[in-house]
Amino acid sequence: MNTIAPTTQRSPLHDFLAPDSIAIVGASADPTKRGYKAMVGLIKDGYPGTIYPINPKVDRVLGVKAYASLADIPGTADLALICTPASSVPGLLIECGKKGVKGAVILASGFRETGRPEGIQLEQDLMDAARRSGVRIIGPNTSGMFNLHKKVNLLALNNIKAGDIGLISQSGNMLLSLVLEAERNGHVGFSTYAGPGNQADIGFNDYLRYLGEDPHTRVATLYVEGFRDGRRFLDAARAITALKPVVVYKSGSTEAGQKAASSHTGALAGSYAMTVDLLRQVGVSVVQHSDEILPVAEGLGLLQKARGKRVAVVADGGGQATIASDRLSEAGLELAELSETTRRRLGEILVPQASLVNPVDVAGSSDANPALLADCLEIVADDDNVDSIFLVGMFGGYYTRFAEDLLGGEMRGAEAMIELARRTDKPLVVYSLYAPVNPPALRRLHEAGLPVYSSIEQAVRVLSALGERGIYLAASAGRQSLPAVTPDGAAQAAFAAAQAEGRDLFEFEAKALLRAHGVVVPEELLACAADDLAGIAERFGDQPVAMKVVSKDILHKSDAGGVKLNVRGEAGMRVAFDQIMASARAYDPQAVIKGVLLAPMARKGTEVIIGVIRDPIFGPVLMFGLGGIFVEILEDVVFRAIPLSPHDASSMLEQIKSRKILGGVRGEAAVDKDALVDLLLKVSSIAEAYPQIVELDLNPVIALVDGYAVVDARIIVDRASSAAKEGPQ
Amino acid sequence: MNTIAPTTQRSPLHDFLAPDSIAIVGASADPTKRGYKAMVGLIKDGYPGTIYPINPKVDRVLGVKAYASLADIPGTADLALICTPASSVPGLLIECGKKGVKGAVILASGFRETGRPEGIQLEQDLMDAARRSGVRIIGPNTSGMFNLHKKVNLLALNNIKAGDIGLISQSGNMLLSLVLEAERNGHVGFSTYAGPGNQADIGFNDYLRYLGEDPHTRVATLYVEGFRDGRRFLDAARAITALKPVVVYKSGSTEAGQKAASSHTGALAGSYAMTVDLLRQVGVSVVQHSDEILPVAEGLGLLQKARGKRVAVVADGGGQATIASDRLSEAGLELAELSETTRRRLGEILVPQASLVNPVDVAGSSDANPALLADCLEIVADDDNVDSIFLVGMFGGYYTRFAEDLLGGEMRGAEAMIELARRTDKPLVVYSLYAPVNPPALRRLHEAGLPVYSSIEQAVRVLSALGERGIYLAASAGRQSLPAVTPDGAAQAAFAAAQAEGRDLFEFEAKALLRAHGVVVPEELLACAADDLAGIAERFGDQPVAMKVVSKDILHKSDAGGVKLNVRGEAGMRVAFDQIMASARAYDPQAVIKGVLLAPMARKGTEVIIGVIRDPIFGPVLMFGLGGIFVEILEDVVFRAIPLSPHDASSMLEQIKSRKILGGVRGEAAVDKDALVDLLLKVSSIAEAYPQIVELDLNPVIALVDGYAVVDARIIVDRASSAAKEGPQ
Repeated sequence: MNTIAPTTQRSPLHDFLAPDSIAIVGASADPTKRGYKAMVGLIKDGYPGTIYPINPKVDRVLGVKAYASLADIPGTADLALICTPASSVPGLLIECGKKGVKGAVILASGFRETGRPEGIQLEQDLMDAARRSGVRIIGPNTSGMFNLHKKVNLLALNNIKAGDIGLISQSGNMLLSLVLEAERNGHVGFSTYAGPGNQADIGFNDYLRYLGEDPHTRVATLYVEGFRDGRRFLDAARAITALKPVVVYKSGSTEAGQKAASSHTGALAGSYAMTVDLLRQVGVSVVQHSDEILPVAEGLGLLQKARGKRVAVVADGGGQATIASDRLSEAGLELAELSETTRRRLGEILVPQASLVNPVDVAGSSDANPALLADCLEIVADDDNVDSIFLVGMFGGYYTRFAEDLLGGEMRGAEAMIELARRTDKPLVVYSLYAPVNPPALRRLHEAGLPVYSSIEQAVRVLSALGERGIYLAASAGRQSLPAVTPDGAAQAAFAAAQAEGRDLFEFEAKALLRAHGVVVPEELLACAADDLAGIAERFGDQPVAMKVVSKDILHKSDAGGVKLNVRGEAGMRVAFDQIMASARAYDPQAVIKGVLLAPMARKGTEVIIGVIRDPIFGPVLMFGLGGIFVEILEDVVFRAIPLSPHDASSMLEQIKSRKILGGVRGEAAVDKDALVDLLLKVSSIAEAYPQIVELDLNPVIALVDGYAVVDARIIVDRASSAAKEGPQ
Repeated sequence: MNTIAPTTQRSPLHDFLAPDSIAIVGASADPTKRGYKAMVGLIKDGYPGTIYPINPKVDRVLGVKAYASLADIPGTADLALICTPASSVPGLLIECGKKGVKGAVILASGFRETGRPEGIQLEQDLMDAARRSGVRIIGPNTSGMFNLHKKVNLLALNNIKAGDIGLISQSGNMLLSLVLEAERNGHVGFSTYAGPGNQADIGFNDYLRYLGEDPHTRVATLYVEGFRDGRRFLDAARAITALKPVVVYKSGSTEAGQKAASSHTGALAGSYAMTVDLLRQVGVSVVQHSDEILPVAEGLGLLQKARGKRVAVVADGGGQATIASDRLSEAGLELAELSETTRRRLGEILVPQASLVNPVDVAGSSDANPALLADCLEIVADDDNVDSIFLVGMFGGYYTRFAEDLLGGEMRGAEAMIELARRTDKPLVVYSLYAPVNPPALRRLHEAGLPVYSSIEQAVRVLSALGERGIYLAASAGRQSLPAVTPDGAAQAAFAAAQAEGRDLFEFEAKALLRAHGVVVPEELLACAADDLAGIAERFGDQPVAMKVVSKDILHKSDAGGVKLNVRGEAGMRVAFDQIMASARAYDPQAVIKGVLLAPMARKGTEVIIGVIRDPIFGPVLMFGLGGIFVEILEDVVFRAIPLSPHDASSMLEQIKSRKILGGVRGEAAVDKDALVDLLLKVSSIAEAYPQIVELDLNPVIALVDGYAVVDARIIVDRASSAAKEGPQ
């Protein structure tokens, strides 16, 4: 099975993402050129390493000695920034290799992303050259990179602060947008940025490992249009999220969006909902609005994670308390139920008209004493029912709104909040309607590492990310690896036969395989001829049975008249058998018919569907949902990468929107969730044990009050792998 | 029927929301008092009218001659601001009346919102005094009011611009938050603000009429915790939205939120989803995130409305083009399909690697010539397939990002965009990642009345509001009033009998009523005794029938063994009749049993549910949804206020999430939507014609490929109205 552990080897990306010397191929004195920008960025920011401008036409670029070619530089360069056109790149990489360059940033476009044969060929040539020369590639078609702690600012961005947010963005505009947002914020800074571009060589998984190891990066933040190797990304993310937060914005969330993404990067977009589920499975904080990326990254970097979802709101106005409550509920968070003690303590310091029930509304108590808000926060922080604390209102603006002499109280309140944030292990999230004007008390909070949000919606998104992260880390701490499953001999033989005959497994073979690995499948008996029915009738006794034709040539059994339900006793079975055979032969005279399968009718229960696919990006993935319209019309299904942990499996049952139905509705009893979790885990193990399975469908499974019944099972066999390879022993 | 038309009378609120003289009761020199703040606000802003500070302890307040009491002022005051405690208010209102004061702003809390008997009594006293004295009341428990075009700034807000957004907010913090957001925005200003507080006298509907008439208000923006008279608000909104945009943020969208709202204002919150549906029905732009209120109000005030949902995106970066596409789809908008001509024209001015398919990505074409973006916008604006235009990217920042000499091109581009916006009837929405730093080209756009958004999400919300408004206005222009329905004599008699007997209508009576008004209800025959069955069997022939017990004492017929399905022929009916009667008697020996109802079994189709309720806030409301789990588990239902227009009815079918099912899924044919629309309109008319109906439930209605079948009908009768009043003729 896939065991997931951080690689012990240090990422090779450090060698050139934190370079001691840089060659600028195409360095220029023309201010509209990237080769000029990069020189300016390095010089202005005081890059302490060596810069080698490469330009055959000039002696110096911006006062720095230039070289006619890479071959002419003394010594080596850790990194080469290549600003010249696409066609020049393969040749330049060979030169880079000769000089010992470790990594190259390729700005040019005109490669695979064009979708044209010559572009695809050029990217092939580029990668051939890269492999031969041993040079790693950032891009091509990248916006570039920076490492602000090394004063490497190849994009020559102005007013950008060094900080602890690492950034990987497939869109240059998105990078710029975040940088400008940080500039307005004033407190957020960045560590390393890289644009993966076409990911010809280095993919998101490699960049993520690097950011995971980079001591200057506290939060890894990624804008992703498409993963090249999603499975390795999941492995990397699982390792990194255990150490630091990873924030991902995945674009292409809708059909329209996916169209735009694929014309832009040529990457496979996959199903957005599936991607989000898999990323969350490995602890990634997925944000779904672009204006939430920076707030969430800032909050996850600075604040405590929350143990759970119970939020205490302290507000100095009822309206915003209500809005906060609305948004918390929408985000899946809860209003904590405050203890008796908490309410008593709040009552002692607040005016009588204050609301002591969460959301706490101080109702004017703080008008003349804004520091009182900090006292309230301290009281709710002491409450064991509270996982996180949310200050909502006008803190920071009392001195402008009410009276100037309240500034002292606000500053005292700010100090008390800073002290509280240090003392408690619960996150304190501050929203202030005065955040846009950044008054002194809020500035003080921000400087002390307490971010202040100017939108309730963004603050709630941060609370939600802190809760998700806390809950994920607690659940993954106890993550168990399930024992691997040994393939069954009979099943291997069935696969070999199916592959030899160029067909998928028969339903009875699929069910036999499932039974062999402990999945409860109701007994089924195959009647090859009518005479087999006597024994079968005896075996099933008085139970009503379902009868289904078995033929590799008949996929839609009902259409072929190949299904009879609620049949009882030998005589009835004989009539049904003859009818089925006659109908099936009439439907397709050429069909090879193996016989008729008989099984007891399933008991009444709730239809669910369990499926396995091998995704081209993410590998084996398990899907779960309720059957019928829920899967077909409402698309209410959830996904996990295989192998599943027990927590993964049980979280699937809680995540579907129609989960209430599993809990029992309209007077019906709840289904046996433990049995379903066990089934999900077994299916996960089976999918791992048999690489021959390219798709598996249990549809429907009837979830019962006690246990479940797998009514139909379908296994699509990998036709590519030869019968010999997977053949019978 | 309720005909909805603007009142021809001018709102009386003008008399005191635009006052020529103001008395400040409780005017003070103490900077922490509201009576000081208000004086400062008036004086600093240069209020040209007369100010009468009322304070018995001083001669002057801030240099203005003070009076010991209202009785002492010479002449009258249009408006009184009352800053004194709650208990003083009723007496002061009497004094106000004597001096001819037209309106009073009551800041004090301590009234109905406390939920305490003494508070409720005090509000009663206040209203008694108001009625006796003829003074209209803003509040109590209000944050106050301002009218910036009259220089009436009773809240003494700093840095607030006069403008065209009218604001009514039940939360003072929300007002402050919007004012600070406008300050940061720099271009948005306000006309009149009022805080309705407890709405003891003046409600949201009155304020909305005032803003509708106010020539300084271009957009009415409301933050609502609860309506007092929702029906009158809908009437007012329908009239005003025909003239100018109305933006509503309704808090209490979730259970948690509703709890907070009701403890805060004591208002009935109602169902949020229903409120949103009803507001949209009358053309209100409902926003659901607090950080979208101001952007949407600004956009609706300044930009053209869109004819439809088809958006053309012009971007200078693929990443943000993708994000824009994602968000547009999510918001229910569409990417316009650009015409051949448009693509050819774009192709002529863009580089070969540009994407000419919407979203248009200029792919570097504008790097050296930002004005080219305006050319692209002009080209897509000419396309008949395009309803609105969306510029996405870094416009305004080219001169910082690339080269300073690009500023000229940016300014030319801005002028061309301004010119385009004037020329075209399609909205041009601009998002720029440089909006946070407000560079010259963006400043120029903003000054010329083209707002620039700093978040793709907010820009998309604006596009969506512009599309909704355009579509609403087009649909409501042709709004037809349906002819009123005359109550049926037999139905009136049935109501009278039911009221006399203290019961609801029997199912057969409800169905007879429906039939009388043209609703297609399958024939049903009542067998009071077994001997009635011979004739009934003859009438129904070979059709299988359903049989149901009829008894006012048996509500759950199935539980009582009172239902038999698929019965055929007289013999079968006799057996079933005896079984039903025996079971029903066994179930409840006291039950009065009227007989057994027989009806042909419904044909196979799609279950839908139609209901009518009389909402305490909004009056008669019709609900529609799919039956079974869709209504019970997924709560996938939609609402419209009665009476419905044909557009209202057909829009219900399009709004439910499971609408795909009505269109035909899993190989089934589409249902007859015209028949359903007709049914909805008939039910609406029936609910209007019979005030005795307090609830009506058609559940299920089987929607068929041709027509529908009302399988069960339930009418709950108003027990309060006497039998005599509605009695038989």
